[in-house]
Formats: sequence, C-alpha cells, structure tokens
Amino acid sequence: MSPPLIVASNRGPLTFERAPRGGKLLARRGSGGLVTALSSALIEAEGMWVAAAMSEGDREKVAASTSGRIDHVEGDARYHLRYLDIPPDLFDGFYNRISNGVLWFAHHYLWDTVTSPSFGPDVEESWDAYVDVNQRFAKALAEEGEKLGGDTAFLVQDYHLSLVPRMLRDLVPDALIAHFSHTSIAGPTYFRMLPARIHDQVMRGLLGADVLGFHAPAWAENFLLSARQLPGARVDLARSRIVTEGREVTVRIHPISVDGRAMREVAATPRVRSLRHALNRWRDNNRLILRVDRLELTKNVVRGFQAYELFLRRNPSWLGRVRFLALLSPSRMELPEYREYTEACLGEARRVNDALGREGWSPIELRLKDDYIGAIAAYGLYAVLFVNPVIDGMNLVAMEGPLLNRRRGVLVLSRKAGAYGRLGRYALPVNPFDVDEMADALEQAMAMPVDERTRRSRGLSRLVLANPPARWVGGQLEDLERAKRRRP
Amino acid sequence: MSPPLIVASNRGPLTFERAPRGGKLLARRGSGGLVTALSSALIEAEGMWVAAAMSEGDREKVAASTSGRIDHVEGDARYHLRYLDIPPDLFDGFYNRISNGVLWFAHHYLWDTVTSPSFGPDVEESWDAYVDVNQRFAKALAEEGEKLGGDTAFLVQDYHLSLVPRMLRDLVPDALIAHFSHTSIAGPTYFRMLPARIHDQVMRGLLGADVLGFHAPAWAENFLLSARQLPGARVDLARSRIVTEGREVTVRIHPISVDGRAMREVAATPRVRSLRHALNRWRDNNRLILRVDRLELTKNVVRGFQAYELFLRRNPSWLGRVRFLALLSPSRMELPEYREYTEACLGEARRVNDALGREGWSPIELRLKDDYIGAIAAYGLYAVLFVNPVIDGMNLVAMEGPLLNRRRGVLVLSRKAGAYGRLGRYALPVNPFDVDEMADALEQAMAMPVDERTRRSRGLSRLVLANPPARWVGGQLEDLERAKRRRP
Repeated sequence: MSPPLIVASNRGPLTFERAPRGGKLLARRGSGGLVTALSSALIEAEGMWVAAAMSEGDREKVAASTSGRIDHVEGDARYHLRYLDIPPDLFDGFYNRISNGVLWFAHHYLWDTVTSPSFGPDVEESWDAYVDVNQRFAKALAEEGEKLGGDTAFLVQDYHLSLVPRMLRDLVPDALIAHFSHTSIAGPTYFRMLPARIHDQVMRGLLGADVLGFHAPAWAENFLLSARQLPGARVDLARSRIVTEGREVTVRIHPISVDGRAMREVAATPRVRSLRHALNRWRDNNRLILRVDRLELTKNVVRGFQAYELFLRRNPSWLGRVRFLALLSPSRMELPEYREYTEACLGEARRVNDALGREGWSPIELRLKDDYIGAIAAYGLYAVLFVNPVIDGMNLVAMEGPLLNRRRGVLVLSRKAGAYGRLGRYALPVNPFDVDEMADALEQAMAMPVDERTRRSRGLSRLVLANPPARWVGGQLEDLERAKRRRP
Repeated sequence: MSPPLIVASNRGPLTFERAPRGGKLLARRGSGGLVTALSSALIEAEGMWVAAAMSEGDREKVAASTSGRIDHVEGDARYHLRYLDIPPDLFDGFYNRISNGVLWFAHHYLWDTVTSPSFGPDVEESWDAYVDVNQRFAKALAEEGEKLGGDTAFLVQDYHLSLVPRMLRDLVPDALIAHFSHTSIAGPTYFRMLPARIHDQVMRGLLGADVLGFHAPAWAENFLLSARQLPGARVDLARSRIVTEGREVTVRIHPISVDGRAMREVAATPRVRSLRHALNRWRDNNRLILRVDRLELTKNVVRGFQAYELFLRRNPSWLGRVRFLALLSPSRMELPEYREYTEACLGEARRVNDALGREGWSPIELRLKDDYIGAIAAYGLYAVLFVNPVIDGMNLVAMEGPLLNRRRGVLVLSRKAGAYGRLGRYALPVNPFDVDEMADALEQAMAMPVDERTRRSRGLSRLVLANPPARWVGGQLEDLERAKRRRP
C-alpha cells in the first residue's frame, strides 16, 4: 500500500468549462506526461491534487463546494482536487509577472542583459504576490496533509511553487517533501542577476524539500552550484547532496517521458486518421520537415527558418520538393515579449516564402493555433522532425514524434534540450545558435539512407517506450522513502 | 636575476603616431595598470613585448625595422617591441568579429538569446582569421623565445590570444607559459552557446598554458567548471588544478590594481589642476555624482540614469542641488551594437533632463569623448562615484576614483564587478539589474554622515595602494616558477 500522496502544481489536471448556452460544467483533461503520470499515481494512492483555479469554470466549481474540494469521476479515474481561488490581481503578479516574467526568463537565459531585466518597485510588489500565493499553497497542503495522516508524501511541481517546500516545512516540520523543476536551471552567475531577496528566497524555498528533482544532469548541476554559494550550505557535488540547517537535501535526476500507449491510441482514432490523410494530400509530393511547439521564446523558431533557408539555398534541388510545416500554439500572450516574438516568427516565415517561393509552392507553412490533435496527425508524416530550442528543461515533442512517426523520420535535436541526454545518440545534434550547423543537419537528414533512418527511428521509439511516466513518479516516491529512512 | 620574459597582448604598450605635417613618429604610452605593471617587469628582466601593430604609425615603424623589432627609449624606460603587421582583413576577423563580436559577448552574457547570437558561415570564416592571427603570435613568441634562451617565461594576455598557449606549446613543448584573462568568464551553460569547434578550441587553447590567471574567484570558478565538462580533463575544484593530456594546469587569482603613485603625480600636474578648477566652477553648488566609463555594453549606463531618476523622484529636495556627470569615451564603434547603445545612452540622458530639468539646471551632463585627463580631474570632486557594470572582469575606475578623490566621496559598486571582491566592504553594493536598489544606494550615499564617509574612503584608498601593479606581475612569475618546479 502506497503512502497518501498530495500533488501541488499551478495548473491542475482538469479544467472546467461551461458547455455552450449555460450547459453543465465539463471537465477537460490536460495532456502531457506530467498529468498522466501524476494522475495515475494519485489513482493508486489515496490523495489529492492542489492547484490554482485557472478558468471561470474552475472558480464556479470551487464556489459550489463547501469543503473547497472537488471530486470528479471520469471512466475509471477518480480525481480529488482542491483548487485555490486566487484573486486575479494577486494571480497576475504571481503567475504572469514573477513566474513567467522573471523566473522563467532567468532559468532560460532569456534576458537581453544590456537592457533587460530592469527590476523596479513593480517587481518588488509582484514578488509579494508570489510569496502570498506560495503561502496559500503551503497552507492548503498542510491542511490536506493533516487530514490524510503523518506519512503523506508531498510532490510539489515547478518554478511557480519554489517557496512552497520551505513554507510547508515551517508548518509541518517533519513533512516528506519533494520538489520537481520542469525547466532548465540557470548557472549561478546568471541566476544571481535576480534581486538578492528573490534569489535567496527561491534557493532557501527549494531547500525546504527533502528531495529536489530535475530532468537532466546539467540542470541538477547548475542548482548544486548555486547552492554552493549560499552561506551555511555544504554541498557534495559528487554525491549530489546539500546539508543546510542540519537537514540533508538530495538532488536527483528523473527525466520525464510521454505516455506512449495513450498517445498511440489517440493516433489511431478516426479523427486523427482523417486529419493525417488531409495533411498527406496537402503535402502532395513534398517531403515534410515538421516542427511542433508552443510559441515560446526558447523554441528558436526564427533561427530555425533561417537554417532551413540556408539549407534550401545550398541545395536548390530541394526547391519545390520539400515543405516546412510549423505548428505553433500561441502562448503567454499577456507578455509583450511573446507578442513581439510571434510577429517575428510570422515575419521570418513570410520573408523566406517571398524569397524562395514559386507559383504553387511555398517553402514554409506556419499554422498558428492550439492544435494538439493536428500535431498528433502530423507526427505520422514527417521526414525530418526539427527540435532546436535554445534551451529546454526536457522537450516532449522530441519523444512524441518518434513514437508516432511512420516514415522512419529523422530527429534533428538541440544539444540544449534536456531530452538530448536520453535521445541524443539516435538524433542529429545541433547547436541552436549555429544556423550553419542546423542547415548542415537538415541536409544530412534529408540525404540519410533508409537503413540508417530505420536504425535511428527504432532506437528513438524504443528509448521513449522504455521510460513510461509511471517510472518518473515512482522514482520520486522511492527518493522520498530513502530520505525518510536516512532521517536521524 | 629574473628569467627572460616575453609578454604577448593584442595591443602593445606604445602607439606610434606621426607628428603633424609629416613630422617624426611619436610614441604614446598606454595608460592603465596592465601596461605599467608589465612595462616595469620588462624593464627589470631581459625581454620583449609582442603585439599587433594597431596604428598606421605602428606599421611604418615595423616597416622601417629590418629585424621586425622596435627598440624605443623614453626617459629611464627602454622598450623592446615586436609588432606584428597583420593584413587589415585578417585583423578585422580576428579583432572585431571574433574577439570583440563573439568572445567578449560570450564572457559578458551580452546576447539577447532569443535572436542573437546567430552563427552563420561568416563566423566560420572569421574564426579562421582568429586562428591565423593567434598562430602568427605563437610563431613570433617561439622565435623570440629561442633567441632569449630556454627558461624564458611567456605572459600571454587576454581573450584575443586564447589559442596562443596551445600553439606555443606545440612549437616549444617545454615552454613556461602563463595566460591571463582580463575579462569576466561565463559559466559553462552560457559559454557552450558558442559553436562546438570554437568552444573546444578556446578551452584547449588556454589549457596549453601552465598557469591560467583571473582577476576574481568567480571567473576562475567558471573556467574550472567549463574545463570539468571537457572529455579527458580531470578537474580538482578545491585545489584549482586541471590535469589534461598528462600535464597539470594551475588556475590562479591575481586581482590587478592601478599604479597609485603615478596616478597621483598626474593628478598634481598644473593641467589637471586647472581642469579640476574649471569643473568645480561648472559644478557650482551642486553635489557631484560621477561615472567614468568606456561606452561599453556592460557598463550599464542606461539603468544607471534610470536609477538616478528614481532617486530624484523619491528625493525631490535634491532637485537643483546635485548633478550627474557621465564621462564616457566612445568604444568599438565598428560594431553596430555599440553604435546603438551610444544612441540609447544619449537618448536616456535627454529623456531624464527633459523630465526633471529646470531653467539653469539639468540633472545629467553626458560628455562623450576620450578624456583620461578630464576623468583624473573629475575624480577629485565627486560626492558619489557610481560604478554599476552588469558584469566586469575587474573595473579600475572603482580604484582610480577613491585614490584621487578629495571629498570623502562614496563608492556605489556593482556586486558583478571583479573589483567588488576586494573593495566591497567599503562600498555600497548594488545589483546592477535592480534599479530600485541602485536608487536606494544613491540616496544612502548622499545622506551618509561624514565620519562614515571618511572611514570608507580611507579604507578604499588604503586597499588600492596595498596592491601595486608590480605585485600582480610578481604573482604570475612566482606561479610559473612553482609550475616549473612541479614538472616531472
């Protein structure tokens, strides 16, 4: 029997939305390995999921409940949720300004340091909102943990909740707490660009956990190096352990993966099949280079188009015989940087199309919409999957694609993605800042002989299937068990 | 008797310029601790300085010499120089494109990663020029070393010549080689944004030395962390040693300083005295906040003006009673980023002056010219010296100011300057990205009681005087001695 389990994340596994014309509140399940893995774990163990109410429907659902808890049954799955109804102003400071506007930028090296960041009084104010929301989470976790009993394991997710481990520790000193970072982690020199107060509180906040999890060795290492500079912290780099305030904190690497079985089921549905056929007709006789991304500053769409242009100019025989399909879902449009970047991507695609397009053929097709099912369909058809983020905590596209591709497609993969550590040996590696190298990789991918492509694509899907999401959660629970046994 | 010594740096200690109307070639000596320290060392030891010919006059001087050597006597000082006449195209690739356009940006975290850098075929080509020029330096060093004898010590300077240690090692396997980095050093995650070939060659190039010197512990640490990721290199972080290819490389910290005696002599000359009087009249009854900088992307001029504006808005009683004098010397105007930044600085000063200026008083005076003597004069008069780089290998302004100031002025100093490690305890520290904190520091500096100011300003000049430039060279020569004794 597993111990009771409480998961905390900013976004919960279900979003509630009112059906048209004042109908019922319908639940939509989030996609991705995280939700799958943690939902399954929660179904096995007694427990619940604490998250922020994100939609109007979420808020209605919270308001309709007396205990603040939402119980939802769907097929075999039962969800026990507690969604926190956070005032919009506070949520804006916590989520848009600090989480996505400051911490995300720091961990992904996104600042143009000559002019940004510039921390003024407004950031101080937003930081107070971040602290407040983290405190609300910690309080809710402590309350729910008390109901479930003393050996509850807390799994706190991601950079939105970096203060929760320490706050929860203060409320429940002997709690078993794991925190998992789904992002890349900046090295100490860069991370110290944050105001000292924010930097120190984030570091101390995380160090309230028993175990800190990361997707890749490079991110774990960067965290350890930052911890090394904290007064009073003793860091053992070789054993990935930190001793601070008389407690031991373990740093562990657990690369997440995707739910291969579930994805293949989706890919086999009539809806996806018909989308795939339509796309195949659209493709015509062209080979397909595919990218699928949230339209995110880190995803490197513009340099990707430039590399593709360079590839075409160097290999004009491919003109009219290849198309680059970019499926981009809009993201974080509250932040001006993201609106500008969207324009830059659209502009670059237009420029390349104007420069190299012909009657009846244009080199790039950019589709700007949130279209998960469309991506699943497109994965089946690519000759080359182009995944070139400037930096990425993990990157699931690099796993989803090879799992569903039916044409022995080649994966071109950035060395800066966490996924590179697992998949690199079967991919063509690129430095995402090196347009020259990316153009070469596209050329090499398009020219690769079929047995080589077969070997690589089989290797990739084998690696993905060998690491089901349950293993990711299981590893974390084992870490907590070990941490518990090591306690004095 | 010291061993023979050969210094290599991109820019030599003397620049030759033709006097007006076709007169004689006159030598102008560079300022700064580096030239002072190394010149003195070269006067004591037999030896020479190898550098690139930078001016037309330098090239004429080289052409007039049969041996390629230039011997120059000035007062007590004799200079033995060898200036390499490098074709302009090659020099452009080596100096503007790679050294200043790529390596400088990498080590100072200057890229706006969403769009820059973007390495294309042009960078590959410029890299070949960088390799070529480094090879010319290595060859000249080997030749001159052969003339001087086997125990010659080579002191190779800075990021322009990062391949020289390895190339020289290949030519003279048992040479005693030290390399000193005068810049900050980026952490491994950031430094690996470089194309793999460039990254690896720079690292391997430096590791050809026996000793690698840095100004501050943070830069040494970042280098060691990068070395740790090189296949085949064994790094001992605690002892700052690297074993690679069966050789041992020691990493050492030697903070450079300024030549206090020489600077005080300059400050006492009639010319500086009259400039100081003129500036004092201009200042009128205003307190003076001073900054002195090369107009360099890292110097953080724009955020500095914003912090000053915030300070004035929070403390309106200072309106009309304080002036911010910014002495900025134009720099690297071949690079578009520097031209744009110059415009941004001018624009920001104008904006603040328009917003807060009054009849007969404007808050900021920006003087854009190369005016070392003017800076020496201004140092005497400041109430606050504002040194807020976003990152800086060392920063000598933070030393020159306190040495020459006569008003118990306060130093506001960025935690990101190498100088902070030595001077921090007597300065008001700021995070250069935190406009809020910088405004607070200015307020605190302006309000500081006189005994506190006295204590701090005395502490600062004492620290500067305690570390004369000769010590910086001496330390490096001792390192080389030790390295020699440790050899099998």
